[in-house]
Amino acid sequence: MKAFRIELALLREAVLGTLPPDAAPPDDDQVIARFAAGAWTVLPEPGDGVAGLVRERVGDVRALQLLVEGTSATAWAQALDDGEVAQMVPDALSRWLPRLGAERILGAFSQGAAHRQRLLTRADEHWPLAIDDLGPHAPAALWVRGDPAALAACDRSAALVGSRASSGYGELVTGQLAAGLVGRRFAIVSGGAYGIDGTAHRSTLASGGTTVAVLAGGLDRFYPAGHDELLQRVVATGCVIAEAPSGVPPTRWRFLARNRLIAALASATVVVEAGQRSGSINTAGHAAALGRPLGAVPGPVTSGSSTGCHRLLRDYGAAVIERPEHVVELIDGPLEESVALGGGTSDELRVLDAMSARAPRGVDELAVRTGMAPRDVTAVLALLELGGAVLERGSGWVRGLGRSPSPPRA
Amino acid sequence: MKAFRIELALLREAVLGTLPPDAAPPDDDQVIARFAAGAWTVLPEPGDGVAGLVRERVGDVRALQLLVEGTSATAWAQALDDGEVAQMVPDALSRWLPRLGAERILGAFSQGAAHRQRLLTRADEHWPLAIDDLGPHAPAALWVRGDPAALAACDRSAALVGSRASSGYGELVTGQLAAGLVGRRFAIVSGGAYGIDGTAHRSTLASGGTTVAVLAGGLDRFYPAGHDELLQRVVATGCVIAEAPSGVPPTRWRFLARNRLIAALASATVVVEAGQRSGSINTAGHAAALGRPLGAVPGPVTSGSSTGCHRLLRDYGAAVIERPEHVVELIDGPLEESVALGGGTSDELRVLDAMSARAPRGVDELAVRTGMAPRDVTAVLALLELGGAVLERGSGWVRGLGRSPSPPRA
Repeated sequence: MKAFRIELALLREAVLGTLPPDAAPPDDDQVIARFAAGAWTVLPEPGDGVAGLVRERVGDVRALQLLVEGTSATAWAQALDDGEVAQMVPDALSRWLPRLGAERILGAFSQGAAHRQRLLTRADEHWPLAIDDLGPHAPAALWVRGDPAALAACDRSAALVGSRASSGYGELVTGQLAAGLVGRRFAIVSGGAYGIDGTAHRSTLASGGTTVAVLAGGLDRFYPAGHDELLQRVVATGCVIAEAPSGVPPTRWRFLARNRLIAALASATVVVEAGQRSGSINTAGHAAALGRPLGAVPGPVTSGSSTGCHRLLRDYGAAVIERPEHVVELIDGPLEESVALGGGTSDELRVLDAMSARAPRGVDELAVRTGMAPRDVTAVLALLELGGAVLERGSGWVRGLGRSPSPPRA
Repeated sequence: MKAFRIELALLREAVLGTLPPDAAPPDDDQVIARFAAGAWTVLPEPGDGVAGLVRERVGDVRALQLLVEGTSATAWAQALDDGEVAQMVPDALSRWLPRLGAERILGAFSQGAAHRQRLLTRADEHWPLAIDDLGPHAPAALWVRGDPAALAACDRSAALVGSRASSGYGELVTGQLAAGLVGRRFAIVSGGAYGIDGTAHRSTLASGGTTVAVLAGGLDRFYPAGHDELLQRVVATGCVIAEAPSGVPPTRWRFLARNRLIAALASATVVVEAGQRSGSINTAGHAAALGRPLGAVPGPVTSGSSTGCHRLLRDYGAAVIERPEHVVELIDGPLEESVALGGGTSDELRVLDAMSARAPRGVDELAVRTGMAPRDVTAVLALLELGGAVLERGSGWVRGLGRSPSPPRA
């Protein structure tokens, strides 16, 4: 790499620091590939679709080389062999080049290594394939603290997200959903924030489940700082991930970009509690755009803390989530046939309505009271007698203590 | 009418007692028509579709005559000129004939008159046309206490229904919806029961609105007895109606049949609070079957009192109702274009994210921090400066106090 003038040995050292200690030593090509993937987490902002398209056309390594070599627009067009993408490159270069520098990229690796981060690339065993549904907006690689195997567990997972300003109600429901989903072997994905996110991670840990936190900034410093201890606990059994390299602070933009990773990683996204402008509405929007199932937990309409959830239910086709089973249904489809409104036999009900528990009534009287034909009353009485719901007594029939039918549709 | 041997003068007396005192005196045909319509509220159970079909084919009067004359099946078939309906008649006769008797029918009129009921028929000015959407299941006539004009007001109305076992939350929301809808000139329909129904009537009265209570039994005795005073107040400004004549007690079957009237009468049905097996779910089913808009108010998932509402939202396409406006939208269509998830310009946000309120930063630094091209940063800064969101200061730019953009989709 000309303009960089970095020795392969230096690259190897950088890359090795972010590999598991027991990993097979990478060959030179693997070192260069990992370095390039890491570089592409440094150069563009998260979600830069042009970076994704360029990497898709020529690969991470060649794309980085072209960048480093100060390639002309004509040479880019030739290399990309895609006029449409080539047209976007000059603009993109003016975004990426200000960040191009060996120190910055090597720094991401060394800081990553210093904070026990692994760089997870598409070549790695635990790369979560669901992320690739983001297409050109997928990250080049992920920075991971903890066990990357937790990411693979996300192939059966739910994102539980919501307001930072959660209520006791929202936290209670989050805890119930997390515990129930852990019991059904789902991993829980969330954003590590205060409120619903934190409760989702905490409840999952308490239930012995696997949880993944997706952060908006680099993993050298957990955000929010008040969740450092919680996120350390997530690292101990699950993992904390980010596409931004160390040293990159979370910003509003990066929170929004981070939300697309949560939506892509999880099999379904459930917004537990959200005000009208909660960031979790944005996560829900990504889930919907990705075709991932979307759920929302309803809540009291008298407080503002479920307004965002109700908006998702009303305007964006989110499913109503009350219990963990509803999340499972969202992902696996209906658990059992839904029952029609009402149901049951109406004639039995009409006859029972017309009967007394004490005063025996004859068929003719019951016919008048029910508006049914006497012979139909007789037939229904015979059926009800079988179930013990009516008893013949002296001059007529009385209600018994047996099974009563369910209310019908009128 | 042969088998009855009722003098026309007696019919006239019966009918006059259930007409408004200031009504034009009916001619003989009108007397007979009103008597027949009333008789058809006595003979079948509410919602008897065969009665509706027979009345539709030959008219109320002829249908009653055929019944009274003990017509043979062949003669019925000839009169109906509809083989399919004729086939159902023998069964239906065995339901209706046990109730056929001059005393019973005249009694409905005299008891009605004694309780200041009006018999409202399709010939009357205030007949609510919406009821006819029930087709053959529509009642032949309605018994009305209070001002029948309130029924005409139901052409712009909402049914607010729900559990008898309502919570403070459900009652609060019912009150808010009723008051808001009254302010928008909607009439409120409900079932007069304890809980949500009663709150709907009470709140409508308190707001000076028009409310209609639809009862399952005859209007000689208001049910539940504990709502007698409330229903008297409904009578004073709106009306209480039933299809059952006086002397007929409410039964579970008749409650279910009554629900179809509520659903048909109201422009939309909103279930405010309902457990899993609330009768209001049945009302909702009728509304859906009639193609009437259906709404449900969400509530906490941690108590059972909104379970039925959530079921309607999840499985039956009910709209989420949080505020009176949502009911209006349900009936009139969206009040304004819905806003896409997120929205706003993302570049402005990225630049603002990268800025400080105190430390001035230059375009190049902002380009690196945002991952945007320097010239794009410059363009965005110019726009932001117009809104006062950024200020140029010495060596660079700082955040101002002006309008900040709304969060975008990533």
